Amino acid sequence: MTSGEDSLIARYFRPLATDPGAFGLGDDAAVLDALGDDVVVTTDAIVEGVHFLSGDPPETLARKALRVNLSDLAAKGATPAGFVLTLALRSADEAWLASFARGLGEDIGLFGCPLLGGDTVSTPGPLMISITAFGRVPTGKMVRRSNAKPGDRIVVTGTIGDAALGLDILKGGAVATALADDVAAKEMLVGRYRVPQPRNALAKAVRDYAHAAMDVSDGLAGDLAKLCAASGVSAVIDAQSIPLSAAAAALLARGTVGIEALVAGGDDYEILCTVPEAAFEAFAQAARLTRVAVTSIGTVIAGTSPPRFLDGQGRDIALPRLSYSHF
Amino acid sequence: MTSGEDSLIARYFRPLATDPGAFGLGDDAAVLDALGDDVVVTTDAIVEGVHFLSGDPPETLARKALRVNLSDLAAKGATPAGFVLTLALRSADEAWLASFARGLGEDIGLFGCPLLGGDTVSTPGPLMISITAFGRVPTGKMVRRSNAKPGDRIVVTGTIGDAALGLDILKGGAVATALADDVAAKEMLVGRYRVPQPRNALAKAVRDYAHAAMDVSDGLAGDLAKLCAASGVSAVIDAQSIPLSAAAAALLARGTVGIEALVAGGDDYEILCTVPEAAFEAFAQAARLTRVAVTSIGTVIAGTSPPRFLDGQGRDIALPRLSYSHF
Repeated sequence: MTSGEDSLIARYFRPLATDPGAFGLGDDAAVLDALGDDVVVTTDAIVEGVHFLSGDPPETLARKALRVNLSDLAAKGATPAGFVLTLALRSADEAWLASFARGLGEDIGLFGCPLLGGDTVSTPGPLMISITAFGRVPTGKMVRRSNAKPGDRIVVTGTIGDAALGLDILKGGAVATALADDVAAKEMLVGRYRVPQPRNALAKAVRDYAHAAMDVSDGLAGDLAKLCAASGVSAVIDAQSIPLSAAAAALLARGTVGIEALVAGGDDYEILCTVPEAAFEAFAQAARLTRVAVTSIGTVIAGTSPPRFLDGQGRDIALPRLSYSHF
Repeated sequence: MTSGEDSLIARYFRPLATDPGAFGLGDDAAVLDALGDDVVVTTDAIVEGVHFLSGDPPETLARKALRVNLSDLAAKGATPAGFVLTLALRSADEAWLASFARGLGEDIGLFGCPLLGGDTVSTPGPLMISITAFGRVPTGKMVRRSNAKPGDRIVVTGTIGDAALGLDILKGGAVATALADDVAAKEMLVGRYRVPQPRNALAKAVRDYAHAAMDVSDGLAGDLAKLCAASGVSAVIDAQSIPLSAAAAALLARGTVGIEALVAGGDDYEILCTVPEAAFEAFAQAARLTRVAVTSIGTVIAGTSPPRFLDGQGRDIALPRLSYSHF
C-alpha cells in the first residue's frame, strides 16, 4: 500500500516528528497549539546553485534551511514552535536523505523546533528546500522592522561578513588564495557560510528591549537600509565598530577585502536591532546572560536619506552595492 | 534602495496582503492570531512538468496552488486563516506575475484566505509554487484520517475522475480523441484539472459529523487505502455509486476509460470522509445547505485488507494502480 514517497517519509522524517501536533506525519495537516500567544510565521527557501552549492553536504543544507528561518524568528522576538518542510528532489537518494534527516534532527533538538509536516515533490531541476517556521510571542509583541526611533542605538550580534568570505573560499576566490595556508580560518569562514548560528537565545531580550529588529541575511548595509526605510528614519554607522572575526579583520588589514564588501555580503544571519539608549545597559546585560555577543555600531537619526557608514576619520564610505538581489 | 525582488513584491503581492498580520509584506514574518483555536497547518507544492504543464495559464496555476491547500483545510474541518507563498521563478516576467497575482487575488477574496507572507527565489530549473496554509478549528477538533470506525458510511463530495480526464485531454490522449467534437465537455474536464473546487463550505459539517476525513488528491482508491490504513479498518465500495460527471459517465459507457482509471486518477480535490450511520442524515442535510453534493459510496468494515471496489454484480474490480506516486 505504501508508495515510495510514503516509505521515504516514514523512514527518514517520521522519527523527527515527535510533536503530538505532527500526528507522526500520518495526516494531511498538523496542529499548532498557539498556547494563547500570537503565532509568528516566516518562510524562506534555498535553491541549489543559488543559495547553496551542489557540493554542500546534505547535513549542513538541512541545518542551513532550518536556521535561516530560526534566525527570522529570533529577530522577531519569537520562541520557536515548529516548522513544515517542502523538499523538491530530483531523485530519492537514500544516502542523501539519511544525511539530510540527521542534520535536521540535530537542529530540531538543539533549537526545540519540532517538524510538524511537509511535502516531498520530485523536480527535474535543482534541489530546493523550503521551510515555513512558526514561533510564539505574547499577543502584539512581535518586534517589527518599522519601529526604530531617532536616538536608538544600532546593535548587531556576532560578527559580520564571515559567511561572504566563506562563500568566496568555496568558489576559489581571492580569499581562498590569501588564506591558502590557514586551514583553521578557512574552515571557520566556510562553516559560517554553511551553518549559520541563529541567535534564538537572544529573542526574549530583543522582545523586551528593542524598538525594531530584523535578521541580517542579505548584507548589513542593505538590511539596515530596509529597516530604516520601514521605520522612516536614517542612521549613521561607525564602520570601525562593526564586529569582525579575527580572520575577517586580518583579511581587511591585508587589503584582501574592503569593509564595503563585508557589509554587503549576505548570509550573516545575525540580528540587527535598534535599542533605545535608556534600555541599552539592560539589553546588554540580558545579552551577556545568553552569551550572545552584541555590539553597538551606530545611531538611528531622523531623516530619510540612506544610512551612512563612516570611516575612522568620519568620512563616508562609498557602498557601490548594498546587498545581494536575485533578480 | 529597492531591489528588483522587493519592487516585484510591492507591485504584485503587497496589494493582496491586506490582513493586518501580514504587515503589508514589509516585515520578515507575519502574525497569525489563533483566536484561541488550534491552528491547522498544511503545505503542498506544485512543480512545472510534474504537477502542472508549462503551458498552463499563470492565473490557474496560482488558483490551483492555493486550492490544493484549501482542500486540505476543508477536509480537516478547518476554516481558512491565511497562507504564505514561496515562488521559485526562472526570471521575473512581469506579464506572468501580473496574471499569477490576479488569479491569486481572486481566490483570496473568494475563500477568505489572506496572503500573510512569502519568499521569492530564483531558480534555473522548473517553476515551483509552494504554499503553506493555515486554518482554525476549535481546540482538539481537527478531523483526522485515523478515526474511521466499522459501520461508518464512506462519503465523497462532487464527482471523481474528471481532473484525470482533463489531464489526458491536455496531453492529447484517448480522451481528447473521443471528445474531439465536444468542446463543452473538454473545457469542463480541463477546468477540473486546472482549477480544483475545494469544498471549504463543507468544513463545518465534516467537523461536526465525520469520524475521519482527508482530501482526494492522489486518486480515490489510493487515498481511501491510506485512510483505512491510518484507521486500522477496511472498506467495501460500490463502484456503481461513485459519483461521476455526465462527461465521465459517457466516456465510461463508451469504453474510452475504465472505472479503475477514474478511481486511480489524481487531482480530484474532493473530500473523502466517513460518517457514522446515525449521523448521516444530519450530515447530508448540512451538506444540502452548503450546496456541496455528497454521495455515500460504501461502508467501513473491520479488518486490515485493502479496500474492495465491487461492480454491479458484486465482483471485485481489479485495481492495477491505486494512485500516482512521484518516486
